[in-house]
Amino acid sequence: MDKAGLRVTVWGENLHEQQDPAVRAIYPDGMHTTIAAGIRQHLGADASVVRTATFDQPQHGLSEAILAETDVLTWWGHKAHNRVDDGVVERIHERILLGMGLVVLHSGHESKIFRRLMGTTCVLRWREAGEREVVWTVSPGHPITRGLPEVFIIPEQEMYGEHFDIPQPDELVFISSFSGGEVFRSGCAFRRGRGRIFYFSPGHETHPVYHQPEVRLVIANAVRWVGTVSFQPSSRINGGHLFRPRIAEGHSHTNENNPPTTPTLIAAPVPNCSPSTPPSRIPSVPDAACATVRLA
Amino acid sequence: MDKAGLRVTVWGENLHEQQDPAVRAIYPDGMHTTIAAGIRQHLGADASVVRTATFDQPQHGLSEAILAETDVLTWWGHKAHNRVDDGVVERIHERILLGMGLVVLHSGHESKIFRRLMGTTCVLRWREAGEREVVWTVSPGHPITRGLPEVFIIPEQEMYGEHFDIPQPDELVFISSFSGGEVFRSGCAFRRGRGRIFYFSPGHETHPVYHQPEVRLVIANAVRWVGTVSFQPSSRINGGHLFRPRIAEGHSHTNENNPPTTPTLIAAPVPNCSPSTPPSRIPSVPDAACATVRLA
Amino acid sequence: MDKAGLRVTVWGENLHEQQDPAVRAIYPDGMHTTIAAGIRQHLGADASVVRTATFDQPQHGLSEAILAETDVLTWWGHKAHNRVDDGVVERIHERILLGMGLVVLHSGHESKIFRRLMGTTCVLRWREAGEREVVWTVSPGHPITRGLPEVFIIPEQEMYGEHFDIPQPDELVFISSFSGGEVFRSGCAFRRGRGRIFYFSPGHETHPVYHQPEVRLVIANAVRWVGTVSFQPSSRINGGHLFRPRIAEGHSHTNENNPPTTPTLIAAPVPNCSPSTPPSRIPSVPDAACATVRLA
Amino acid sequence: MDKAGLRVTVWGENLHEQQDPAVRAIYPDGMHTTIAAGIRQHLGADASVVRTATFDQPQHGLSEAILAETDVLTWWGHKAHNRVDDGVVERIHERILLGMGLVVLHSGHESKIFRRLMGTTCVLRWREAGEREVVWTVSPGHPITRGLPEVFIIPEQEMYGEHFDIPQPDELVFISSFSGGEVFRSGCAFRRGRGRIFYFSPGHETHPVYHQPEVRLVIANAVRWVGTVSFQPSSRINGGHLFRPRIAEGHSHTNENNPPTTPTLIAAPVPNCSPSTPPSRIPSVPDAACATVRLA
Repeated sequence: MDKAGLRVTVWGENLHEQQDPAVRAIYPDGMHTTIAAGIRQHLGADASVVRTATFDQPQHGLSEAILAETDVLTWWGHKAHNRVDDGVVERIHERILLGMGLVVLHSGHESKIFRRLMGTTCVLRWREAGEREVVWTVSPGHPITRGLPEVFIIPEQEMYGEHFDIPQPDELVFISSFSGGEVFRSGCAFRRGRGRIFYFSPGHETHPVYHQPEVRLVIANAVRWVGTVSFQPSSRINGGHLFRPRIAEGHSHTNENNPPTTPTLIAAPVPNCSPSTPPSRIPSVPDAACATVRLA
Repeated sequence: MDKAGLRVTVWGENLHEQQDPAVRAIYPDGMHTTIAAGIRQHLGADASVVRTATFDQPQHGLSEAILAETDVLTWWGHKAHNRVDDGVVERIHERILLGMGLVVLHSGHESKIFRRLMGTTCVLRWREAGEREVVWTVSPGHPITRGLPEVFIIPEQEMYGEHFDIPQPDELVFISSFSGGEVFRSGCAFRRGRGRIFYFSPGHETHPVYHQPEVRLVIANAVRWVGTVSFQPSSRINGGHLFRPRIAEGHSHTNENNPPTTPTLIAAPVPNCSPSTPPSRIPSVPDAACATVRLA
Repeated sequence: MDKAGLRVTVWGENLHEQQDPAVRAIYPDGMHTTIAAGIRQHLGADASVVRTATFDQPQHGLSEAILAETDVLTWWGHKAHNRVDDGVVERIHERILLGMGLVVLHSGHESKIFRRLMGTTCVLRWREAGEREVVWTVSPGHPITRGLPEVFIIPEQEMYGEHFDIPQPDELVFISSFSGGEVFRSGCAFRRGRGRIFYFSPGHETHPVYHQPEVRLVIANAVRWVGTVSFQPSSRINGGHLFRPRIAEGHSHTNENNPPTTPTLIAAPVPNCSPSTPPSRIPSVPDAACATVRLA
Repeated sequence: MDKAGLRVTVWGENLHEQQDPAVRAIYPDGMHTTIAAGIRQHLGADASVVRTATFDQPQHGLSEAILAETDVLTWWGHKAHNRVDDGVVERIHERILLGMGLVVLHSGHESKIFRRLMGTTCVLRWREAGEREVVWTVSPGHPITRGLPEVFIIPEQEMYGEHFDIPQPDELVFISSFSGGEVFRSGCAFRRGRGRIFYFSPGHETHPVYHQPEVRLVIANAVRWVGTVSFQPSSRINGGHLFRPRIAEGHSHTNENNPPTTPTLIAAPVPNCSPSTPPSRIPSVPDAACATVRLA
């Protein structure tokens, strides 16, 4: 809905691609590059920036400055989950709760950030055997399904099967079956804080999954959907007043015909909650002292 | 938790069994008899009554008196959905909202009572080809999964596939796959009013599904689970006072040490809401006049 | 996301306004006119049409032609719930399941269409005493909260209190408190079929609630949100093939680098499911015969 | 449903009671003792053990041995959240995901264990002013509401208000209002892994809340409800085979009448997943090597 385009950061671990020629043959410039291209292809002008970041970069390419200019982050990782810096994870976590969108792909299910958001182990059943995955839509009105057929096939994929140890998704969008008879909740939408999260399981590195049109469309739709909640100009996120009602004195209960003469909601003076913090800053910690307000 | 056993009514349409020798060979006494036997087998003394009722009986065997003595109703129907009496459906619906449990089986997904509770078409994809169904648990802590393996196989079943047009279940318990690659949300738990509903899809009449141990255990567990909310001795359901707080004058805000001297919650006199209705009667219509209450 | 603007139909019962001078004084042209003005004010060019319809019009102003050109319907009714034509309700229900958005306001909680969609009684506790309602956001990232303060006050309102007999909302957005100490889930989002539904409780006819800026913004945001799922060009809704996969022969499993030479998903010929039905027609009944499809 | 009684551990921080005479006057033996007494009072023989544990004890009284004999843990903490040992938190977290129930009370919303399970900040709005809290049931069929009135009053409480930064509860049971006009989701049920969690907000240390009959009943009901999922004799939790299907060779697809002659589900030999681990041991980490299984 915002006229300004989404600012997307595509994070790729980019280690398999460097270490395994078979993977590099499929993704010569890294999976992140292919994923970013798919997002650009579908979002066009609706994305003002689609940048990439990788594990080997300083701070994994996710400095405070970069995150501050990111509306949606996508995440593909696998081998180096445990080597991802805890401070970076903390920073991503905070920003998601404040409204940044997150799209987690495939083996990202075991990433620190996804496990932290879920609160569970996020383990699943798996088997690498190049099997057929059939992806079914179970929530056909969901924006993430827009333009997709009700079912599509990924010819060769790693099997991911239930039980997938996650909280019940706020909205279950896709379920996959595999040649072996397994099933998997392959498209799961979550809301945490003000942020939205979408997990999409297809994407093993040894198969050209991110070149497949339907997969690219799912990811692009997911970027749009998690990005719908961008940073609102709210006192909650701009001035350190995470919990101070934004109601200006006296006008909140106004109706058009009968402007009120006295405020009925008064935010009491809140020490240590000065609004001097510049609007662009996102508070790192909600200030409990700001949580006190009294209705008159 | 109640010491008194559950009173279960197993409803079977019982038409295929009469009309189709192949079905009768599998269920000589009707599917309902087999289903009831499985419930008795597992619930033992926890069920005080497990009776059956069928389409051909007066009022389909579901008179007001029978329903008044039913804590859990199970439902298998198919051919005669449209011939089920609307008044009986209305009566079942009311009683579920007041706390009776409902277990809907297989083709019961298109029954009047299930569609009415769901508010959607409840249609699905299907194919009769005797295919293998694999039933996976996706909510392993749910009481309905107790004693079951994480996955079990039904050797031959009718395929039921997504999209299944239901509201998102309050809890998704099982997902099935089929030989053709389809998936289906085969075990779905819902809460409506004070009642609980469980839909379980296995059970085509031409396969011996209700003789299979795992299926029998699922149904027995489901009967227990939907039956957990039996009729509470509450003013809401016994005396026509659906909305009159049950707090007796003066003791609701009592704490052990400081018994109050004055009531702080007062139910205003409510005209036309006389408590003279005998406690055993379940009100057929919530009385709007009873909805007015004032906190002092 | 669609470039074409939303087509909104604002339905108002418009009986209180004709019969009660006190209501007419607040809404001289009917509540529907005020509600429509608020939607136009906020949506601007994002709504291509904002029309109104009322109870007294033929077919209540909701002919098949009008509904076919409606992406979002808003509903305010009270006195005449039982006199709304069942055929019109059926038509609205079908269209919602196919993707039309619905915003139900205040006493619309007992309308036929809302009760049908919910499957419950939708009754609640109420009291007409012109009390203060405080509306709190509990889902701050939800698009319906965009631009709103975390809390706002409606100076005088009818009290609506729990228990509100609805299924658990798919997303709970607002909770209100009232002077008497009651609480109410005042903003509830549901998904049914491909459609989205939002219930928003403020709006008693004897108070100028629909003139209040925050209320108007909530309704406009809700119209946008339920309207996000407009009619997709899908075989499911255009050609009568509600369940025939839309995958064209052979290309669904294509990836960019390795075009397939043989289709792996084949839609079997489906008798009685001719695609000749013109694309603009919305099927009134899903055709079970179309539900059979086989993965090769 | 299990015949063996629940083993309950009531954890109390027990610092306010030692340091603040006003608190000690209300809870001379500590809040944990009062809470434990309420649970014993209501559960009777349904609880085989109700023990207590406090912050000052070694390992906070929550050694591996104690947790191994705990089916339900209740948690009240406030001042020392950050001083709770991370290893103990880790141990509790694991055990909850395996099926132990958790009841979190009042200021426990900011405990390490609750925040870890939720994945969000769990912050809220608050004010200490001894205000009236009115607790409304919004899920009247839920077992936790059994025996309670639809609404009850806590005469004096600390205000807890929205927005409460938690994931949407799997089931919302209570909503409270406060004298100041605030609302709060005061009874929230969650499922994580195989475990159940219930958060109940009443209970500020300077008010005699845990002496109040309704509050004691809520907590006792909650203990029962989260304790319903006790440790099942499953291969997933007893032998290290978290993901190995428990289906014995050949009998899973058996039906009573037609014993199969060949197994259709075969668990492949799984290296490093020896079932020699004694059944009483709960695996600390799911073994990925055990996740591979193939359906024949």
